[in-house]
Amino acid sequence: MIKNSGTVSESHPMNGGDGVYSYTKNSSLQRAATNVAKTKMDDAIAEKLDVSSECTFRIADLGCSVGPNTLIAVQNIIDAVQHKYQLSQAPASHTPEFQVFFNDHVSDDFNTLFASLPPKRPYFAAAVPGSFHGRLFPESSLHFVHSSYALQWLSKVPEELLNKNSASWNKGRVHYTSAPDEVAHAYGAQFAEDMAVFLDARAKELVTGGLMVIIMPAIPNGIPHSRTPAGLMFDLLGFSLMDMAKEGLISEAQVDSFNLPVYAASVKEITELVERNGCFSIERMEITTPRQSSIDGPASRQACTMHLRAGMEGIITKHFGAEIIDQLFHRFHKKTEEFSDMMESSSKEGTQIFIVLKRV
Amino acid sequence: MIKNSGTVSESHPMNGGDGVYSYTKNSSLQRAATNVAKTKMDDAIAEKLDVSSECTFRIADLGCSVGPNTLIAVQNIIDAVQHKYQLSQAPASHTPEFQVFFNDHVSDDFNTLFASLPPKRPYFAAAVPGSFHGRLFPESSLHFVHSSYALQWLSKVPEELLNKNSASWNKGRVHYTSAPDEVAHAYGAQFAEDMAVFLDARAKELVTGGLMVIIMPAIPNGIPHSRTPAGLMFDLLGFSLMDMAKEGLISEAQVDSFNLPVYAASVKEITELVERNGCFSIERMEITTPRQSSIDGPASRQACTMHLRAGMEGIITKHFGAEIIDQLFHRFHKKTEEFSDMMESSSKEGTQIFIVLKRV
Repeated sequence: MIKNSGTVSESHPMNGGDGVYSYTKNSSLQRAATNVAKTKMDDAIAEKLDVSSECTFRIADLGCSVGPNTLIAVQNIIDAVQHKYQLSQAPASHTPEFQVFFNDHVSDDFNTLFASLPPKRPYFAAAVPGSFHGRLFPESSLHFVHSSYALQWLSKVPEELLNKNSASWNKGRVHYTSAPDEVAHAYGAQFAEDMAVFLDARAKELVTGGLMVIIMPAIPNGIPHSRTPAGLMFDLLGFSLMDMAKEGLISEAQVDSFNLPVYAASVKEITELVERNGCFSIERMEITTPRQSSIDGPASRQACTMHLRAGMEGIITKHFGAEIIDQLFHRFHKKTEEFSDMMESSSKEGTQIFIVLKRV
Repeated sequence: MIKNSGTVSESHPMNGGDGVYSYTKNSSLQRAATNVAKTKMDDAIAEKLDVSSECTFRIADLGCSVGPNTLIAVQNIIDAVQHKYQLSQAPASHTPEFQVFFNDHVSDDFNTLFASLPPKRPYFAAAVPGSFHGRLFPESSLHFVHSSYALQWLSKVPEELLNKNSASWNKGRVHYTSAPDEVAHAYGAQFAEDMAVFLDARAKELVTGGLMVIIMPAIPNGIPHSRTPAGLMFDLLGFSLMDMAKEGLISEAQVDSFNLPVYAASVKEITELVERNGCFSIERMEITTPRQSSIDGPASRQACTMHLRAGMEGIITKHFGAEIIDQLFHRFHKKTEEFSDMMESSSKEGTQIFIVLKRV
C-alpha cells in the first residue's frame, strides 16, 4: 500500500471556476510572487541544475490550485531548462520531453485547470490529487519540484488551540497574530511537523541532483506578525468576526473554535528543518519582497479584500456557513479603511521567502 | 511543442456525478466486459509481460471515464503484475512502485473520479486529460496500456455523411446500422484513420516489451449490424428520433445531420491495422461474449435504456438540446418493448473483442 503520512491533511480549496470571487481572477498577489521568482528561478536552473541524458524531465507543481499562475510558473521552468540543455555541450544531452504534474487536494477544481491548459504546450500534462503532506509520486521519479504559496497551509489546526484548558486556547482570534506566545508556538510546532513530512516525501520522490524551489510567505526578522500586511489582515478578519459575534449574528464560541491553518516561517526555522531532514543542500534561501504597493490606497484595499476572499471563502464557509460571507467581507473591507494608516505603515519588506534545495 | 495528431477529437463525456442517470451508476455492461477480461488479462500478464528491474511500473487507462470500472481494471492489472514479480526468481526483479494514469477527454468528470479513488491503494494516481487520438505521454514512459470500451468512439463523424450529394449521406438514420454500404464504408475509413493515429502514439509511449490490452465492441463474422444488440439499439434510437421528427418535435434535418461516432470493428480489420502499424506483435486477439442475458426481459430492457442514456445523453443533448432527452428515452424504452422479439433473437454471441499487443 502507498503509505500516506500519519497527518491527515485538511483540504481548503481556493474558489474554483472563473467568476468574480474566483481564485483565477484574484490571485494577482501570487502572480507577483511568481514574477519576482522568475529571474531567481532562471538563475537557479542555469547554475544548479545538472543536465543529464534523461529521456523525460518530470516537473511537479505542488499546491497548484487553479488559474494562470501554475501555468506561468511551469512555462518559466521549462524555458529555463530547455535553455540550459541548449547551452550544454555534452553530446548525450539532447533536450528531453517534459511531463508536468499539477498537484492539489482532491477537491481542487481540476476541470477548470485542464480547460485552461494551452492547447499547444511543450509538455505532457497530468494532475495528481492529494495532499503533499505525504507521498504523491514514485521513488526518484521527479527532476524538479515547484511550490509557490502553498506550504504556508498547515495540514491541520494545532489541536491544543481548541482546548479551553490549554494556554494555547485561541479565544477571540482566528490566527496566532496578536496572540499569546503559546498560540504561536503551537502553530510553529505544527509547521515543523508538516515540513518534516513534506521534506521526507520529496526526498524520496526527487532524483539525486533534482531541484526543489519553494516560495512562501515569511516573517521578516524582528518584526511582529501584527505589523506585517498578512498578520494585520488576519487580525482584521478576527475583529470583523468578533463584531458579528457581539451583534449575535454568529456565536463567540464559533470564533474561538475557528483558526486559520496558515503559517509564515522565518529563515532560521526553515534552515533548521531542512538541515534536520538531511537529504537536501540549501542552494539559495533569501527573503524577498512580493511587491511594494500591495495594500496602499483604496484600490489596493479592494484587491486585498478580494484576494483574501478568493483564498479563504472556502474554509470560512465550512465553519460559519455561506450566509455570513458577503457581510463578513463587507465588514472586513470597512476595517481596512479604518486601519488604513496601520496598513500603510506595516512592514511590506521581506514578507516572502525564496528557497532552492537540491537533493543530494 | 507537443504535437497532437491532425485529428481533432470530439469529446463526448459519459454522464458525470453519481445520480440516477450517471455513468457511475449505469456502466454494468462495461463492468461485465471487465470481469470477462480479468482472467484473460491475468493470463496475458503471466505469459507475456517481461519482468524487468524498473523502479516504477507505469500503467495508463485510456478512455477511463468515471465510475468503478477503471478502478477495478487497474487493481486487476496491478494484482497480476505483482504476482508475476513475486513468482520471478530474477534477483533484480523486486516489485516496483506503480503509477497509474487515468486518461479521458478534458471534459470528463475527473473530480468525481478522484473522489472515488480508494484511500489506501497500491499505486500513485494521476489524471491525464486529452484525446488518445494523439500523444499523451512522454516517449517510452509506459509499461502497460489498458483501454476498455473506448476505442469504438471515433474521433469525429465522417464528413461525407453530412453531404447531401454524397452516396454516404445518412438520411433518417443516426448510425451505419441498416444503412447503405457507403455509409458503413465511411465509418470504417474513419475508424482505420483513428486507429492508425492511436497505434502510432502508443508505439512511441510504450517501452519495448510493454503490453497493451484493448477491449471493445466487435462485429461477429457474417452477422449484419442490425442483428446485433448494439446495432438494433442504434436503429431503435433512430426510429424514436424520426417519430419525434414526424410529430414536429424536432426537424428531420436535425436527425439527418446527427450520427453517432461509434464503430464496431471486425477481427480482420483490426489485425490489418495493427500489422500496417508494424510496431506491435499480436499476442492474443479473440472474440468474446460480454454476457448472455444483456437485453432479455423487461428488467434488462430497462437496464439497456439506462445504459444507452448514461453513455449517449451528452452527445444527443449537444445536438438536439436537453429538453428532448426524457421524452426520447421514454420512446426508446417503448421501442425496446415493441421490438423485444427481435432483441431477444439478436446475436449476443461474440460482440466483443479482446486484444493483447506487445511493443516489439
